[in-house]
Amino acid sequence: MAILDYQQLFTARANRVKSSIIRELLKLGNQPGIISLGGGLPDPTMFPAEKFRECMDIALTTHAAVSLQYGETPGYTPLRKALAELSKHDGITNVMEENILVSSGSQQAIDFISKLFIEDGDTVILEAPSYLSAIQSFQTFGAQFETVPMDADGAIIEELEIILKKLHAKGISPKFFYTIPTFQNPAGVTMTLERRKKLLAIANQYNLLIVEDNPYGDLRYSGEPVAPLKALDTENRVIYMRTFSKILAPGIRMGWVVAPTDVISKINLVKQATDLCSPVVTQVAVCEYLNKDYLWSHVETIKKAYSHKCAVMVQAVKDYFPTEVKVNAPQGGMFLWAEAPEYINTVEIFKDALANGVAYIVGTAFYPDGKGTNTMRLNFTMPTPEKIQEAIKRLGDLLKAKIH
Amino acid sequence: MAILDYQQLFTARANRVKSSIIRELLKLGNQPGIISLGGGLPDPTMFPAEKFRECMDIALTTHAAVSLQYGETPGYTPLRKALAELSKHDGITNVMEENILVSSGSQQAIDFISKLFIEDGDTVILEAPSYLSAIQSFQTFGAQFETVPMDADGAIIEELEIILKKLHAKGISPKFFYTIPTFQNPAGVTMTLERRKKLLAIANQYNLLIVEDNPYGDLRYSGEPVAPLKALDTENRVIYMRTFSKILAPGIRMGWVVAPTDVISKINLVKQATDLCSPVVTQVAVCEYLNKDYLWSHVETIKKAYSHKCAVMVQAVKDYFPTEVKVNAPQGGMFLWAEAPEYINTVEIFKDALANGVAYIVGTAFYPDGKGTNTMRLNFTMPTPEKIQEAIKRLGDLLKAKIH
Repeated sequence: MAILDYQQLFTARANRVKSSIIRELLKLGNQPGIISLGGGLPDPTMFPAEKFRECMDIALTTHAAVSLQYGETPGYTPLRKALAELSKHDGITNVMEENILVSSGSQQAIDFISKLFIEDGDTVILEAPSYLSAIQSFQTFGAQFETVPMDADGAIIEELEIILKKLHAKGISPKFFYTIPTFQNPAGVTMTLERRKKLLAIANQYNLLIVEDNPYGDLRYSGEPVAPLKALDTENRVIYMRTFSKILAPGIRMGWVVAPTDVISKINLVKQATDLCSPVVTQVAVCEYLNKDYLWSHVETIKKAYSHKCAVMVQAVKDYFPTEVKVNAPQGGMFLWAEAPEYINTVEIFKDALANGVAYIVGTAFYPDGKGTNTMRLNFTMPTPEKIQEAIKRLGDLLKAKIH
Repeated sequence: MAILDYQQLFTARANRVKSSIIRELLKLGNQPGIISLGGGLPDPTMFPAEKFRECMDIALTTHAAVSLQYGETPGYTPLRKALAELSKHDGITNVMEENILVSSGSQQAIDFISKLFIEDGDTVILEAPSYLSAIQSFQTFGAQFETVPMDADGAIIEELEIILKKLHAKGISPKFFYTIPTFQNPAGVTMTLERRKKLLAIANQYNLLIVEDNPYGDLRYSGEPVAPLKALDTENRVIYMRTFSKILAPGIRMGWVVAPTDVISKINLVKQATDLCSPVVTQVAVCEYLNKDYLWSHVETIKKAYSHKCAVMVQAVKDYFPTEVKVNAPQGGMFLWAEAPEYINTVEIFKDALANGVAYIVGTAFYPDGKGTNTMRLNFTMPTPEKIQEAIKRLGDLLKAKIH
């Protein structure tokens, strides 16, 4: 009897996605009794469950025949219209329904970007650190990475220019620059307007595609809003990704892409072979939710709560962390980013943290090249203010013991 | 000012998915006033909207905090348990929750199969004809195809053996055999039990992986059920794909994969980078729907209606089609498959059909190699019995005019 060796059948692509130490650490953090500062999870006590249920009710009564049937691949047309309208809220005024495609969370949009643009060996430019699951998707499709460092004003555009010059000298055209310019994940920083303009000028000069991910932009707790790159883009070189995960609920898995029609048409074809269409029933419910104008009042509610939690964590860090550990105080988003002295390894401390009932994400998870071993990401949206204080106190004690 | 040429940036993979004539034809068939026998759509008047709404209500009240939060990548655990239990209904008794992964429709499972197994240039074996969007997905990832012809008893296993011998002589190991053994799409035929056993024996001999797609198995209107390959598989060489699209509602986009844990673990990693997880809210609602035992009574209801529509179409074909056009009378599923004499081109007739208010899918869409130009697929689940009769009458007149 022959035995099938699945490992041997798997593609190089599939084998690139390995069960990482990081994922194992994340799982450990989800154990009961642990205060997790790990995930990027919204506070589940704040979900607009009753209002969403009301909208789902309408989807499954008035619109049942549409909601339960196959839908059009780029999305439910009334929703695409509503999302084109919603883009104006981001200062993006020149998009129509045909520039919008509904994705199953912005993670699916990232999968489409990989499928559309990444051949094995292609170069992609990232901010360092950057979003874990974007790196994972690009890596799966065989991307090589160049990374742009950040400071308090976001990605350092001069450094990007140096990379672009270096690549062009080698005859390499990078496929795109993936950026989270607002309340960056995990670093929490926001790219200034000046830098954004400079980035677009450089992109124009080097004819570079920009993939802008904006999951957190609506969660601003202080300071003035900065226009997304897409709102400043006069040359159709920005693909813009948005999601309802942080402002409504991640469990509905709904994001959307704003892009030139060339790109939307191609994603449409790829999406057909990927999942035919996103769930229609949730699209109809979200469309009702937008049409009833429930979104922005909910965003105000969560902003108030998250702003408080953010302030609590920032204060707790001041109170309990050793001064040698540098932690930012973000103007929005979901994370604080901590940088310990180089000699501290946050993977090693993680076990002690768990033993003390606290979990975080080790910063090295956000670097494609194993850097960031002295860093960690701390989420403040999920735990209660009391738990935030307690967790930061315990972490602070562990860090203090390592400082020399 | 540099202009970004997106066409130049797209991967070979993305460029393989072209907007086909077929897709354009499908669109034309969706115009108002056209009786469409085209799509594989359930009858929307029969969706269990009220019962599903009741379950969604529970998901968004009792389980709101779970339903609206991020979920585990392989699926909502109580649902995976229920699906392992449901597998017994298919005669599959040896699977547990860890053998189940919830996908966004079975189309997403096909995307995972492509990602896991297909390197550019790999050989995949298909039945000819086969499911359009599976061919499209495999093609996108660079598959080469070998095709096995079918007769009234399903795929001809002797022909499969000839292909396997030929490939092995050339040193080519095909990645898998993709089969829809029950109420095949589009051909409507069902592989006999004898053939299934023979297929598994051959697969064992040649150490071949089998990907079994079973979207229609529950829709049997006559004859005796035949066990799925997965129920007969003693060697873990069958990956089994199921969906709620035809038995509950496609608009919820929910399917599931039954596979060895090696495969589920790998899909789990790939799914993480693809969409993090499937929508939780619909998973919780479907889990309620299963736990309330609503599924099988609904399946009985639609079987009764579809069985009648199937009989109406079979009779209409007898009454109105020229005898030179061979049409099967399936024991279940959603389609009749028509083979006209070789000199008739169903793509050419399509325009006349549209002008006469009828649409179908041209058979060549289901062949990876442009064959089947004299064939067409006719769906009987979506239109009313009256419209079925009318459409078949009009098509019959057009076909009669072409017979010589």
